[in-house]
Amino acid sequence: MDPEEFRRAGYAVVDWIADYWSTLGRRPVVSPDPPGAVAAALPPGPTAHGEPVDAVLADLDALIAPRLTHWQHPGFFGYFPANTSGPSVLGDLVSSGLGVQGMLWATGPACTELETVMMDWLAGLLDLPERFRSHTRGGGVIQDSASSATLVATLAALHRASGGRWREVGVDRRYRAYTSTHGHSSIEKAARIAGLGADGVRAVEVDPGSQAMRPEALRAAIEADRAAGDVPAIVVATIGTTSTTAVDPLPEIGAICAEYGIWLHVDAAYAGAAAVCPELRWSHAGLEHADSYCFDPHKWLLTGFDCDAFWVADRGELIEALTVMPEFLRNAATESGAVIDYRDWQVPLGRRFRALKLWFVLRWYGVEGLRAHVRRGVELAARFADRVRADDRFELAAPHPFSLVCFRLRSGDDVNAALLARVNGTGRVHLTHTRVDGAHTLRLAVGSPYTTEAHVDEAWELLRTGADELLAR
Amino acid sequence: MDPEEFRRAGYAVVDWIADYWSTLGRRPVVSPDPPGAVAAALPPGPTAHGEPVDAVLADLDALIAPRLTHWQHPGFFGYFPANTSGPSVLGDLVSSGLGVQGMLWATGPACTELETVMMDWLAGLLDLPERFRSHTRGGGVIQDSASSATLVATLAALHRASGGRWREVGVDRRYRAYTSTHGHSSIEKAARIAGLGADGVRAVEVDPGSQAMRPEALRAAIEADRAAGDVPAIVVATIGTTSTTAVDPLPEIGAICAEYGIWLHVDAAYAGAAAVCPELRWSHAGLEHADSYCFDPHKWLLTGFDCDAFWVADRGELIEALTVMPEFLRNAATESGAVIDYRDWQVPLGRRFRALKLWFVLRWYGVEGLRAHVRRGVELAARFADRVRADDRFELAAPHPFSLVCFRLRSGDDVNAALLARVNGTGRVHLTHTRVDGAHTLRLAVGSPYTTEAHVDEAWELLRTGADELLAR
Repeated sequence: MDPEEFRRAGYAVVDWIADYWSTLGRRPVVSPDPPGAVAAALPPGPTAHGEPVDAVLADLDALIAPRLTHWQHPGFFGYFPANTSGPSVLGDLVSSGLGVQGMLWATGPACTELETVMMDWLAGLLDLPERFRSHTRGGGVIQDSASSATLVATLAALHRASGGRWREVGVDRRYRAYTSTHGHSSIEKAARIAGLGADGVRAVEVDPGSQAMRPEALRAAIEADRAAGDVPAIVVATIGTTSTTAVDPLPEIGAICAEYGIWLHVDAAYAGAAAVCPELRWSHAGLEHADSYCFDPHKWLLTGFDCDAFWVADRGELIEALTVMPEFLRNAATESGAVIDYRDWQVPLGRRFRALKLWFVLRWYGVEGLRAHVRRGVELAARFADRVRADDRFELAAPHPFSLVCFRLRSGDDVNAALLARVNGTGRVHLTHTRVDGAHTLRLAVGSPYTTEAHVDEAWELLRTGADELLAR
Repeated sequence: MDPEEFRRAGYAVVDWIADYWSTLGRRPVVSPDPPGAVAAALPPGPTAHGEPVDAVLADLDALIAPRLTHWQHPGFFGYFPANTSGPSVLGDLVSSGLGVQGMLWATGPACTELETVMMDWLAGLLDLPERFRSHTRGGGVIQDSASSATLVATLAALHRASGGRWREVGVDRRYRAYTSTHGHSSIEKAARIAGLGADGVRAVEVDPGSQAMRPEALRAAIEADRAAGDVPAIVVATIGTTSTTAVDPLPEIGAICAEYGIWLHVDAAYAGAAAVCPELRWSHAGLEHADSYCFDPHKWLLTGFDCDAFWVADRGELIEALTVMPEFLRNAATESGAVIDYRDWQVPLGRRFRALKLWFVLRWYGVEGLRAHVRRGVELAARFADRVRADDRFELAAPHPFSLVCFRLRSGDDVNAALLARVNGTGRVHLTHTRVDGAHTLRLAVGSPYTTEAHVDEAWELLRTGADELLAR
């Protein structure tokens, strides 16, 4: 495909996306088709000779688009938001066109330097502690996801706990990782990958009101492990847990980590974006105690997946844990010590030019544009929570400091599960569920720039009328 | 940014890429600027209010594009190729616009099913063993990179070696991983991440002629470890090593792995693409012994990074090793057992809709188009090797079965290093180096669809005349 063919086909694909976004609100949020519908409609292999782009776009319309879960839909309220935006798509398009492999500074100087600067911009935007900025011993890097951020934090923590011997001798299974019972599943997965097994993870109990980690329970778990001869290596605290957006008390947790010499990683995958707004920065109090921190611009900051922003307070420790230097990657810039090679900050060797989409997003929206987006999500969630509060049949299951509301009918798990299925079955909205205090709980998370009061009100109407019918039985 | 603003700006970005590709051959392949030039030119943070896309594109031209290593340049012969193509960029653009999170079947049914079908298409295209196809117990998945494929293969191997206890109790440091001395650095990194440490990796010696792993040396290493009480868990064999594209003898290695019950992972990151051509499938002989296999369409198959194609012969083992099921991800489709949830096949939880770019590439080029691309690379490499062979001052350092040529002046390391610096300093071409049999060796790898005879001949002319001048001193 020569550049002129690409230009023509590129316009057609841009049109396809613009039309998709324009018609999104009229599509069902989730496909009603059973498993296998797409696979059954596709031929067993590619043709011998090529087909035109138009043929692929026709199949995109006929086969693929109707069988998607539309994460950008204004009625998508499931999981956490994973919203992209026009500027993000454009930045990623430039990245795809450049096709730069940014594993080393030398293999893409601007790719590396723009990433360092964007991570500093983000640190400023969230008012993160100085220790994470690139002019200190710390610094930031883009990971694909918070899962990977937790993994590399765990590896660096093991390296530190071993006195630097881990990278040579392997992991000691007596090391222990701690998180709350509401910590993300990726924490157990990271511990498993790192060789600690599920047995190496301690789930610390939460306060029944706030759903946040109880510092005294953390201390007790650490003390019990030490008494048994085990070695506490890392605590993962959460700002905005996946179930309910609870905020673990970092000042107390940080003090305990400092006392015992334990690595503190803070996972703010979803709620980190809230810190662009000064009035929501209370959620990040105590972050100066953290050895590492991450949040996902690809969740609530209008940047397409994958873009997890991860910082460490001591980049030297991270690099020492992860670097491997074969001959074919040796180069003068690396050996000068004057550059960053981001391959040493992550699991894979290769890396895309992901800083471009951040650059496009931060510049197109500006600081106030991003704040307006976050505030809008908080307001819409509060609007929905008011509806829940005003209906005696429902209850809020947890505080809603950000853009997620956890709620349920006061009528038991089965009725709540039925209500969720009924509302999602309309195709107008999509919510997901969790368990809070053991009870089946519905979650409504706002994040799309296309979501308005009308969409939130429609969700509530569907829930209210669904409850009318279910409770009348 | 509403859909109509996106449409207008999208055309502009498509134009930017088409123009970039059209002018690529006239740009220096590598930036001459010292570290810090980009960072110094950027402001300390985003503006309070947003800026137009045009302003960002102007800075892209002024600040970023001149300071890149241009991986898509027709004179880029470094590392391994990492070439994208028009169809790949278009498929990725659709993926960015859809913004689908494909962690579960339920969160993107078409995203999951298209991936399964594309992996089957690729398996057919390369004529891979039946055991890797999705209608058997095996199956394929897209990983970000061969590094991650090696890591998940290592984890599944550890799980198997432990009799299924690894995911609970953690890793036993007596497990051992084996690869040749030319195995990729990601193999050591995977072992380190998995908790084995560098001490857990055995580098098996290679045959001095072929640079391929010596099966008898592998057997000796395994026997020595067993005698010492250690437990061989995984062998990583390579089709197309990074230094010289050597092909490890899979039939013999596979028989040894079967004899001792060791997981065999085959890393064909670069050279796997060769198997689209029937006449190059000799390189994959013995692959039916492998428990897992990967290659990178993002290297030599015109698909933009990231797209590593990874297959296992028993998906149940992989899933059992990696699955974690929190309440917030439970859903009816998963519990039915009728669907694939690809999050359980990889390290991160989240995943992009990467099958789209493969679908666009496979359909636009067709089978014969892809074969023509690979054959072209092999021919251009052979053409270059003929030039080297015809000049007595030079020697070929290894066979060149694919599109990489390893060569050097017969005049010692310093002269070869000087020649490389001199040729790269022209900005017309970019080559990298390695060490073969202890000697500094230059590498010329062909992969760009824009590379023609003229570019390869120019590279040779620069080398030849550079040698004239250096040897005259």
